[in-house]
Amino acid sequence: MSAGGSGEDKLIARLFAPIATHPGALGLKDDAAVIAPPPGYDLVLTKDALVAGEHFFADDPPESIARKAMRVNLSDLAAKGADPLGVLLAFAIPADMTPEALDAFARGIGGDARLYGAPLLGGDTVKTPGPFTVSITALGTVPAGQMVRRASARPGQAIIVTGTIGDGALGLELRLNPERPGFKALDAKAADYLKDRYLHPRPRVAVARALRGRASAAMDVSDGLVGDLAKMLAASGIAGEIEAARVPLSPAARVAIESEPALLETTLTGGDDYEILAVMPDHELDAFNNLATAAGIGVAVIGRTHEGRGLAVHAHDGGQMSFARPSFSHF
Amino acid sequence: MSAGGSGEDKLIARLFAPIATHPGALGLKDDAAVIAPPPGYDLVLTKDALVAGEHFFADDPPESIARKAMRVNLSDLAAKGADPLGVLLAFAIPADMTPEALDAFARGIGGDARLYGAPLLGGDTVKTPGPFTVSITALGTVPAGQMVRRASARPGQAIIVTGTIGDGALGLELRLNPERPGFKALDAKAADYLKDRYLHPRPRVAVARALRGRASAAMDVSDGLVGDLAKMLAASGIAGEIEAARVPLSPAARVAIESEPALLETTLTGGDDYEILAVMPDHELDAFNNLATAAGIGVAVIGRTHEGRGLAVHAHDGGQMSFARPSFSHF
Repeated sequence: MSAGGSGEDKLIARLFAPIATHPGALGLKDDAAVIAPPPGYDLVLTKDALVAGEHFFADDPPESIARKAMRVNLSDLAAKGADPLGVLLAFAIPADMTPEALDAFARGIGGDARLYGAPLLGGDTVKTPGPFTVSITALGTVPAGQMVRRASARPGQAIIVTGTIGDGALGLELRLNPERPGFKALDAKAADYLKDRYLHPRPRVAVARALRGRASAAMDVSDGLVGDLAKMLAASGIAGEIEAARVPLSPAARVAIESEPALLETTLTGGDDYEILAVMPDHELDAFNNLATAAGIGVAVIGRTHEGRGLAVHAHDGGQMSFARPSFSHF
Repeated sequence: MSAGGSGEDKLIARLFAPIATHPGALGLKDDAAVIAPPPGYDLVLTKDALVAGEHFFADDPPESIARKAMRVNLSDLAAKGADPLGVLLAFAIPADMTPEALDAFARGIGGDARLYGAPLLGGDTVKTPGPFTVSITALGTVPAGQMVRRASARPGQAIIVTGTIGDGALGLELRLNPERPGFKALDAKAADYLKDRYLHPRPRVAVARALRGRASAAMDVSDGLVGDLAKMLAASGIAGEIEAARVPLSPAARVAIESEPALLETTLTGGDDYEILAVMPDHELDAFNNLATAAGIGVAVIGRTHEGRGLAVHAHDGGQMSFARPSFSHF
């Protein structure tokens, strides 16, 4: 990004330079940012792209789109045990996007940059004849060698998740099919809660440090709990089992599932959770739980890992569940 | 990026994991990459996005699109004096993109990753109902404090450019308006040369180190020589003048301009050069020139900086040139 004389430059200078508070962003007046990573730390890098109509609704509030784009990336950093350092942002603007919408988008980026300590380091703005498209590269830091990986889960440990599972997937399904019986059972507040969880992920940045040195593996739940856990176990070369009854659900999700049990599958496989899924030894559970609780984030033990291959999901009646579509793919 | 069981995962594993040769990419099997920046070095970060129909033609060969996306980013690193470290890649795939086109795109990314020492560290693939869109974040390294900035040009120094100017802009104009008299004067080889310069930028990675400690300021010429130089001078709070006759032109550009003098303005203001524009003291010129020449890259002194404000472009007849549109903006 650069601030100079053209239309693009003026737009950037007005909307985005105030968010570029990191000295290495050079006020967005250069073609590149420069950062001096703290000695003894590794840099963690992640990059997620979002497309209108695929990852959000084209008529979602632009500020919410911005926050979602920030948060899905910050969620990846958190699951790796990394503290946010900053973000690079590229977005492609359709011809019909209004200046007010751009303002609101910049407000969302700026708000989350401040909230999560992830200032804008640079990026690019381009035009597109297609849908609004956002790509963010997030940078974080961890003490050298302490990034929490996905493929390093150990057998004989606890499988835990933060927060509640399935709210984002139910919020999406509620927007797509509001007439389903499970959603008719919700009061307005519960329905709004689920929709908000889809629109505004809550990256668990506050537990990132607590994962370091404790979790043998972690990832954020973005494509559905069952599919993501199966992926982690396969990458780690181990097996695991979870109990559906121990998967933490919000009150809204409970009401919906009680009225329409088929929504349990949506909850377990739907995606858009942006909670943290981790595997850790039993003796670390208390300390992790205390640190998470102090940050206002719930933790639930949902199962165990063991030697072998595969993931078993036990139903409330003790039988093993199988899923038509164990994982959600935006792709 | 991650390699697992879904369609996206399989695509990534097959096409992109082989390019992710940096150990920190973790074989694209995690949600993030981890790098340990070398002690005593700063990290230089840049991010450019390209959209079909805006930055390249939708029917350009996918391998060329990939190379252009890599090279416009590597060009930014080179102008900052940075050695490439790696790239993160996100791209949005339209429904009608064939597997063969994706193969070719991956080949282009992989080819340039090897050619320039910029392995794939991670990224994201998404679907889009819109045009093919590519976003790359490139990371480079410089010895601490030695990034060559844009806003630090000093008065009383030489203004230099690498290579030849205007070929990319003429190549684009030739594709858009092949019937112009300047292009009718070209033989097939000269026309192909200009089109190739538009399609395949040549990032001046080989002179990056020679800029460090020598240039008081540098940037790559992406939006037109005159506009980019004006931007650098304004950011630095100084003035400058260049002579159009000293701007280095390729033989093809010379022929086109001789037949149609109006194309000189396209050359000076058109963009897509991806040459390096720098300001440096006279006593550094010989050393820089020798290092660039050894790397097979020409260097031309085109003017001087001085105290004051503004940029004067002197024509061949000694008069001052003015431009309808001093800078090209993709935005």
